[in-house]
Amino acid sequence: MKTVSEAVIKRLPRYYRHLKRLQLSGVERVSSKRLAEFMDITASQVRQDFSNFGGFGQQGYGYDVSKLVDELREILGLAERHNIVIIGAGNIGRALAGYVGFQKEGFYVTALFDVDVKNTEIDGVPVYHIDEFERFVNSEKVDVAVIATKSDGALEVKDRIIKVGIKSIWNFAPVSLDVPDDVTVESINMSESLYVLSYKMKSGNTK
Amino acid sequence: MKTVSEAVIKRLPRYYRHLKRLQLSGVERVSSKRLAEFMDITASQVRQDFSNFGGFGQQGYGYDVSKLVDELREILGLAERHNIVIIGAGNIGRALAGYVGFQKEGFYVTALFDVDVKNTEIDGVPVYHIDEFERFVNSEKVDVAVIATKSDGALEVKDRIIKVGIKSIWNFAPVSLDVPDDVTVESINMSESLYVLSYKMKSGNTK
Repeated sequence: MKTVSEAVIKRLPRYYRHLKRLQLSGVERVSSKRLAEFMDITASQVRQDFSNFGGFGQQGYGYDVSKLVDELREILGLAERHNIVIIGAGNIGRALAGYVGFQKEGFYVTALFDVDVKNTEIDGVPVYHIDEFERFVNSEKVDVAVIATKSDGALEVKDRIIKVGIKSIWNFAPVSLDVPDDVTVESINMSESLYVLSYKMKSGNTK
Repeated sequence: MKTVSEAVIKRLPRYYRHLKRLQLSGVERVSSKRLAEFMDITASQVRQDFSNFGGFGQQGYGYDVSKLVDELREILGLAERHNIVIIGAGNIGRALAGYVGFQKEGFYVTALFDVDVKNTEIDGVPVYHIDEFERFVNSEKVDVAVIATKSDGALEVKDRIIKVGIKSIWNFAPVSLDVPDDVTVESINMSESLYVLSYKMKSGNTK
């Protein structure tokens, strides 16, 4: 498969979101120009992005919205079930466990792990002691591990995730994670986002 | 002030994080080469990034770590106090209210607002009915409003934030927000991040 650039990959979920909205509104066809407006890019960029995946449709007629939603769902892997475990049952871990939006797209949180188990269940998700982590992963299908610990514990948790064989890490700890080539990490760093906002406020750069 | 590119702006918090870590470890000077390794970019890119802010130090001698931390803190606006209000006291809003990491850098959550007030206080932060929002903002200094509602309510909340005169929005709802030129928005879209991870898993593109 052709290597798709990071910038294009990051746009895929946004295309998907806008197209689902159009689909819900009953819109059947959409032009690259219209899509480009939603995405804040040019129509030619939209066509170039889609060319990475075979093009999706005929210029002039616009794209078939429902077909495009299905294609993107397939490309994004949202047509499949993904089992997620969360390490760290603090505020972030609990928020993620209860985030119903993920289930609609096939992401199921099957367990939370913490060094200090205060509740046996959070929003219907069982909570286990971190000592149970390897046994759980070896007996259940786990596709994604979420690091929702403080930065202190994150590196050790990362090592355990890799050692037990999970290949996808969704990281919420404010640390950089070195991982082997066959492991994927996506990080959400809330502090960094807040600092960018703070910079823009301070510098008067509002865009 | 020279316009700094979005890519550079996004790297500033990461420089800051790495430099603070070096400072904590007692490191006094750091070369652009060493910094570049932490940042996964080239040394020349580091020097180019810093040239946006006057350069920060002499090539050959490396950068003074503590001085650089102070400079970046100033540039990022972290030397000042920022008052934050959160609209939406669901899982995300509650997690943010309790996220102590922000206070260390001058960000104080002063109130939560919700359509349904279940607790009068969350992690020490008072919770008010959304009807109190405008009155609160008009009587207290508020620098940043966080949208932590579901996507349904987000656009109406955005309009109220803008109307009451808050110029910085930190958005956690999975929607695109159109705002006037003098308003800054930073968004964290967790679904998009998860979909990017899912895409990489599916496509075998682990980087």
